Amino acid sequence: MSQHKSHHVVGVIGASGYAGGEVVRLIDDHPAMSLGVIAGHSSAGKALGEVHPHLPGAERVLISQAESLESEVELMFLALPHGASAVPAMALLDRGVKVVDLGSDFRLTDAGRYESAYGSRHPFPDQLGQWTYGLPEMTRHLLASTDRVAVPGCYPTSAILAMAPLVAAGLVNPEGIVVDSVSGASGAGRGAKANLSFGAIDEGVRAYGVGTHRHRPEMEQAIADWSDADIDTVRLSFTPHLVPMQRGILSTCSAPLTSGATLEEISAALEKAYADEPFVEVLTEPVSTRWVVGSNRCVMSAHVDDHTGRAIVIAAIDNLLKGAAGQAVQCANLMFGLPEPAGLPIAGWMP
Amino acid sequence: MSQHKSHHVVGVIGASGYAGGEVVRLIDDHPAMSLGVIAGHSSAGKALGEVHPHLPGAERVLISQAESLESEVELMFLALPHGASAVPAMALLDRGVKVVDLGSDFRLTDAGRYESAYGSRHPFPDQLGQWTYGLPEMTRHLLASTDRVAVPGCYPTSAILAMAPLVAAGLVNPEGIVVDSVSGASGAGRGAKANLSFGAIDEGVRAYGVGTHRHRPEMEQAIADWSDADIDTVRLSFTPHLVPMQRGILSTCSAPLTSGATLEEISAALEKAYADEPFVEVLTEPVSTRWVVGSNRCVMSAHVDDHTGRAIVIAAIDNLLKGAAGQAVQCANLMFGLPEPAGLPIAGWMP
Amino acid sequence: MSQHKSHHVVGVIGASGYAGGEVVRLIDDHPAMSLGVIAGHSSAGKALGEVHPHLPGAERVLISQAESLESEVELMFLALPHGASAVPAMALLDRGVKVVDLGSDFRLTDAGRYESAYGSRHPFPDQLGQWTYGLPEMTRHLLASTDRVAVPGCYPTSAILAMAPLVAAGLVNPEGIVVDSVSGASGAGRGAKANLSFGAIDEGVRAYGVGTHRHRPEMEQAIADWSDADIDTVRLSFTPHLVPMQRGILSTCSAPLTSGATLEEISAALEKAYADEPFVEVLTEPVSTRWVVGSNRCVMSAHVDDHTGRAIVIAAIDNLLKGAAGQAVQCANLMFGLPEPAGLPIAGWMP
Amino acid sequence: MSQHKSHHVVGVIGASGYAGGEVVRLIDDHPAMSLGVIAGHSSAGKALGEVHPHLPGAERVLISQAESLESEVELMFLALPHGASAVPAMALLDRGVKVVDLGSDFRLTDAGRYESAYGSRHPFPDQLGQWTYGLPEMTRHLLASTDRVAVPGCYPTSAILAMAPLVAAGLVNPEGIVVDSVSGASGAGRGAKANLSFGAIDEGVRAYGVGTHRHRPEMEQAIADWSDADIDTVRLSFTPHLVPMQRGILSTCSAPLTSGATLEEISAALEKAYADEPFVEVLTEPVSTRWVVGSNRCVMSAHVDDHTGRAIVIAAIDNLLKGAAGQAVQCANLMFGLPEPAGLPIAGWMP
Repeated sequence: MSQHKSHHVVGVIGASGYAGGEVVRLIDDHPAMSLGVIAGHSSAGKALGEVHPHLPGAERVLISQAESLESEVELMFLALPHGASAVPAMALLDRGVKVVDLGSDFRLTDAGRYESAYGSRHPFPDQLGQWTYGLPEMTRHLLASTDRVAVPGCYPTSAILAMAPLVAAGLVNPEGIVVDSVSGASGAGRGAKANLSFGAIDEGVRAYGVGTHRHRPEMEQAIADWSDADIDTVRLSFTPHLVPMQRGILSTCSAPLTSGATLEEISAALEKAYADEPFVEVLTEPVSTRWVVGSNRCVMSAHVDDHTGRAIVIAAIDNLLKGAAGQAVQCANLMFGLPEPAGLPIAGWMP
Repeated sequence: MSQHKSHHVVGVIGASGYAGGEVVRLIDDHPAMSLGVIAGHSSAGKALGEVHPHLPGAERVLISQAESLESEVELMFLALPHGASAVPAMALLDRGVKVVDLGSDFRLTDAGRYESAYGSRHPFPDQLGQWTYGLPEMTRHLLASTDRVAVPGCYPTSAILAMAPLVAAGLVNPEGIVVDSVSGASGAGRGAKANLSFGAIDEGVRAYGVGTHRHRPEMEQAIADWSDADIDTVRLSFTPHLVPMQRGILSTCSAPLTSGATLEEISAALEKAYADEPFVEVLTEPVSTRWVVGSNRCVMSAHVDDHTGRAIVIAAIDNLLKGAAGQAVQCANLMFGLPEPAGLPIAGWMP
Repeated sequence: MSQHKSHHVVGVIGASGYAGGEVVRLIDDHPAMSLGVIAGHSSAGKALGEVHPHLPGAERVLISQAESLESEVELMFLALPHGASAVPAMALLDRGVKVVDLGSDFRLTDAGRYESAYGSRHPFPDQLGQWTYGLPEMTRHLLASTDRVAVPGCYPTSAILAMAPLVAAGLVNPEGIVVDSVSGASGAGRGAKANLSFGAIDEGVRAYGVGTHRHRPEMEQAIADWSDADIDTVRLSFTPHLVPMQRGILSTCSAPLTSGATLEEISAALEKAYADEPFVEVLTEPVSTRWVVGSNRCVMSAHVDDHTGRAIVIAAIDNLLKGAAGQAVQCANLMFGLPEPAGLPIAGWMP
Repeated sequence: MSQHKSHHVVGVIGASGYAGGEVVRLIDDHPAMSLGVIAGHSSAGKALGEVHPHLPGAERVLISQAESLESEVELMFLALPHGASAVPAMALLDRGVKVVDLGSDFRLTDAGRYESAYGSRHPFPDQLGQWTYGLPEMTRHLLASTDRVAVPGCYPTSAILAMAPLVAAGLVNPEGIVVDSVSGASGAGRGAKANLSFGAIDEGVRAYGVGTHRHRPEMEQAIADWSDADIDTVRLSFTPHLVPMQRGILSTCSAPLTSGATLEEISAALEKAYADEPFVEVLTEPVSTRWVVGSNRCVMSAHVDDHTGRAIVIAAIDNLLKGAAGQAVQCANLMFGLPEPAGLPIAGWMP
C-alpha cells in the first residue's frame, strides 16, 4: 500500500472500530504517511478484511496492543474506549513515539473536572494540561511542537466551532448556551448491543445523557479557552440525540445575544474566525449533515431569532472524520509539519 | 366497512394525503363513526386503493371537494394544506356540518398574529377566536359544545404538552423557552418534491424554518392560554429539524427554572397535569419516538440540568396520530359525546 | 386489558421477542381472547413495559417459562428460538392445553428431512406428522379439530402462497422453482448481535444461507402437500437476503411454464385459489411490502416472462404478522371456532 | 482544482444528476484529468454548490449543453437520460472529441434489438456496433483505440461479471439464467417524483419492470459476446427491485449447471477470469453491498445448490461507481493510455 511513500510511518491501536478503521482508510491514501502497524484487542490475529471488508489490503493482520507498543513507528493513533488510552499512551511517549489520542482520557485539563465528569480519578493527573487539545482551528500554533494530542470529541468539535467565536467576540452571553445535537449511530461505536441494533435505532429518535453527558465539560473548557474567559462563566446545557443514520452530527447551538448584537455581527464574527480555514465554512442556508458526510469539513449557518434575542448557529460534521479520524490526521499533519489538508477529503458523499 | 355501525356518519376532505389517509384508517375501525364520503383534489375520481394501497375498501372512490360539500355527513374532517380549509369550512358550517380542521387556518385567535405568522390577511377574521383549539388536554371542557375545531399542529402538540404545565405552575420562566424538535418526513406531506426525495432525506439531518416557523406563535398562544399568562411574556425559540424516518416527533424543550424550582416539583407538576389523561404519560427515562409510533399517546420525560438551571422536558408523539389524525378523532369523540379513547390506538408499532 | 371479554384465555411464552410482542399486541385487541399469562426467559420478572415500551399494560410482569407451563390457559402461543419449543409444547399438550408454535420444531413431517435440515435428530419423532401446518389457506379444514399447530416460517408463507396453486394446476414445472426473497431485519430476531447492529444493516443488502436455508425443505414439503405431488418432484432454489427495513418480506418466485401455459391461466389459477380468502389478494401491478406492513394480508402479482418461458409471482407479507404472529392468531381463531379474521388487521401502516 | 495537473481536459454534460456528480467528484481528484467544462440542462447557470453542496469548488458554474458542445475538451462524459445522448454524442465526435456515454443510447449493437427494447427506432442506426461497450474486464483491448464508449448499465455490470465467465466456460446452461437484483434508490435518478419520495421508498421493497426491463437484452448481448455464444442461446429472466438505501446493487444470478459441473469448477472459472483484475474480487462468503459502496470494486461469491443443480453467483457493486461514473472513468483511463486504476477508489465507505 505504502512502499513508494517516503515519509512518516505511523500506527493505529484500536483499528477494528469505526474510528480506527477510518484512520486506516485515510492513512492508506495519505501522500506522506504510511501504516507500520495496526493493532486490535479482541480482533488481534484477525486479517483486516475480516473486520473491515470495505478496505483494501485485506490480508494485513492486526497485532495485539502489547506487541504494537514495541513497534517502530513515529506516531501512534489511539482509537480506544474511554479509560483505555492512558496507559498505552504513556508507554509510547516514554519510547519517544508521538501520540494522537482519539479518546477522552486527556481532553480535560483539570483533575477535579475530570473526576467530576468521568466519575474516577485520572491515573496520570500530572499529564493533564500537558496535552494539546487537537482542534487545529483553536490550537494550530501549538500542534507543531507537541508530541501528545487529545483529539476533541465529536459533539464538542461541532459545538465549539459554532459558539466559541461568538463568545470570544462578546456577542452572546456564555451563561445561557443551549446545545441540542443529533448524531448518527456510528457515534455510539461498533459493539454488539441490543440498544444499537437495527431494530432499536431505525425509524426512531431518542435523547440520552440528558444533563449528564461527558462532552459538556469539554465544550465549556474549550469555549472558555478559545475566548479567554473564566470557565465558570461558560454554562452550557447539552442534550444529545440518536437518529437513524450512520454518520453525521448536527448541533443546533443557541445563546442569548448581548445587548444590541445583530445577525450581521454574528455572521461577521464567524466568517472572520474561519476565513482562512481549509475545513470550516460559514453558509447562509440552514446546513445539512449530507453536505459533509465523507468530508473533513464543518459547515455552519448563523441565524438570529429577534423574537427571543438568541443567536442560533447550526453546525454539521461527519462525526467519524472532522469529529474523530479526520481531525486526528489533521493534527498529525501539523505535528509532522506537513500541509494541513494532506490526505483529507474535502468532497463528501452524496447521495 | 361500516354498514353495521349505528352512529355518526362523517367525511374526510383531503383523504389522499398522509393525515387524511390516517383519518380514513381510524374511522374505518371506529366503533361509533363511519365514513360517508371521502374527497380529494387531484385524486378525485380515483379509487382509494390507488392512493392508499395499504387500506381496505380499495374500491371506494374519492369524490371532488365541491361534491363533498353537498354530502350528508354530520361532521367533516379537513386535511388540507394551509389556506385551503377556510372556504370549505365555512360552507360546511353554514349547512350545519361540524368541522374538524387538521390544517392551520383557524388555530390562531388574533388576526394580527395570524397575518404576521402567515404573511396574509385572514379571509374570515371574525371567525378567529370562535374556533376551539383541539387539544383535549387543554380544552376538553369546550369540545363537547363546539361545532368547529382547529386541531393543533404536530410540533405544537408536543411542545405545549411538555411546557405549559410548568409555565402554569410558575416553575419555569416562559421568556427563555427553547424548543428543538426533530420530525420524520411524513410531517412534510406527500408531495413530489426534490427535497423530499429518498436521496435528499435518507442518511441526513437538516434544520429548516430557523426562527421563522409558523408553529412558534401557535405554541406561544397555547402556552399562554393554558397558563393564563399574558402572551407577550411567553417567548419561545423554535428550531425544527427533518430526520430520516417516516413518523415521529421528538421535542426537546427547555426553560430557565424559576428560583428554587426542583426536579421533584417539575415532575410533580407534569404528573398532576396528566394523571387522568388517557393519552399522556410522564416517564423518567429519556423518551423515544419508537414508543409512540402507531399510537395516539404522547410520552414525556422530565429532567433538570442543575449546572445551568434549566428544566428539560422531552416529549414524543406520532406526528400523524396525536400530532394530526388521532387528535382530530379524539376531538370528534368529545364533540359527539363518545368515550374519548374510542377508536384510538394506545399500542404502538415496534419494530 | 381484558376483563370484559367473555372468552378464551391464552398465553404467550417468548413474549419479549418481536413475534411474541406482536402476539401480545394482537391478543390485547382481540374480541374473543385474552391474555392469562406472558412468559419470558431472560426477561422473566421484568415488567412488559421494559421489554415492549410501545405496548399498554406496561406493569404486567413476565413470568418464567417453568411457571407458565402450570398456568390455566386454554391455548399457548410459543414464540421461541428453533429447538426450544418441543419440550414445553409436549408438557402443555399433556395438560390439555392447545399449542400454537411459531417456531420451527414441528413444521417438517418427516424425521429424515428434519435431521437433514436441522442437523440433529428430532426429540419427539413420533410427533412429526401429528401437527397441523398452520397455513389456513391450505389446511383450514384441519385447524378446527387439532390441538397442535406449527405456524409456517415467514419466507415459506410467502413462497408457498405464490407457487403452490400454480404447481397444483400443472401450470409450472416444480423442479425449476427459484425463490429469491428479501426480508426486513426483524426476521432475524431481537438479539444483541454485531451483524444485526444498525451499523451493519443500514444502507446495505446481503444474501445469507445460500442453498442451505432451513426454510427450503419446508417450502418444498408444503408445495408438494398442497398440490398432491411427490415431494421429490419439487425442487426449489432459495436465496434469502437481508435489507435495511424493519418489517416485510418480498419473495420473487419463478418457475418454468409447462407447455403452452399463459399469463391468463397463471392469473386465473391464483385468483381462483384465493377468491374467498380474507387475507390473500392477487393484484396486477408488482407488489410492494409497504402495502402490507402492519396488516395480516398477503398481496401478490403474477407475471409471465415470455422470453424465457417462466412464470413469476411476487408476494409480499409482513413477516411478523402473516409471517408469524398474525398467522398464529388466524390459526387460533380457527381452532376456537371463531371468525377467522377476528382481531386481525387488514389495514396496513403507511407511511 | 486542477491548475497543477498536466494532462487531459475533459467535460461532463449532465453534471447535476447523481452519476454526473460522481464523475465531477472523481475527476476533481484524478491525477491526470481535469474538468474543463460542466454542463446541465435545467441547472444551467447555477453554481455547482447549489446542485452538489457536498462538492468543493462550489462557485463553478454549470453551462448549457449547447455551449458545452463548443468547448475545448479532449473527452466528454455524457450523463443524460435515455435518448438524450445520441445527438450531442454525434456532434462531439464530429469535432474530434472522444465520448464516454453513461446512458443507454449506444449499448445495444443491433437496431432490431434496440427498437424492441426501447420502443423506438435508433436515430443513428449506423452507429450501432461502432461503439465499444465499456466493460473493461471484457473489452479492455478495444478501449485504447476507440473514441466512443457506451458504459454498461448498472444492473448489467453486476450480472455480466457474475455470469459471463461461467457461460464462456460451458459450466452453466445460458438458457436458464435468472437474475434477481436489488438496487438502492439512487439508481432511479434524482427527479422530483412521488414514487421516489422518502415516504414511498423508506421501509419497503418493490419489484418493477418485471420481464420488461431494458437491461435484460443488454445483459444477454454482453454475455453472448463475452462467451462467443449465439445471442439466441442466452435467455435470461431479470427482475429488478428497489430497496431503501442510497447506493448499491446486489444481483443474485443463477443458472442450471451443465452436467457434472462442480463448485470447484465454478469458483475456478471466476477466479481465473478475474485473477489480474484490479476491480473484481471473488470471495467465498455471500457478499454485501456494504463492502463496495464508495468503491469501484465488484465483489462476488460463488455457490452451488446441489439440490437443484444450479450455480448461484451473487455480485455487489456501487451502482454509481462501478455501475456508472467509476466505470466511465476506468474506460477513459484506458482510452488515454493512463493506468487503469488512476483516480478510482478501492476503499469503500463503512459505516
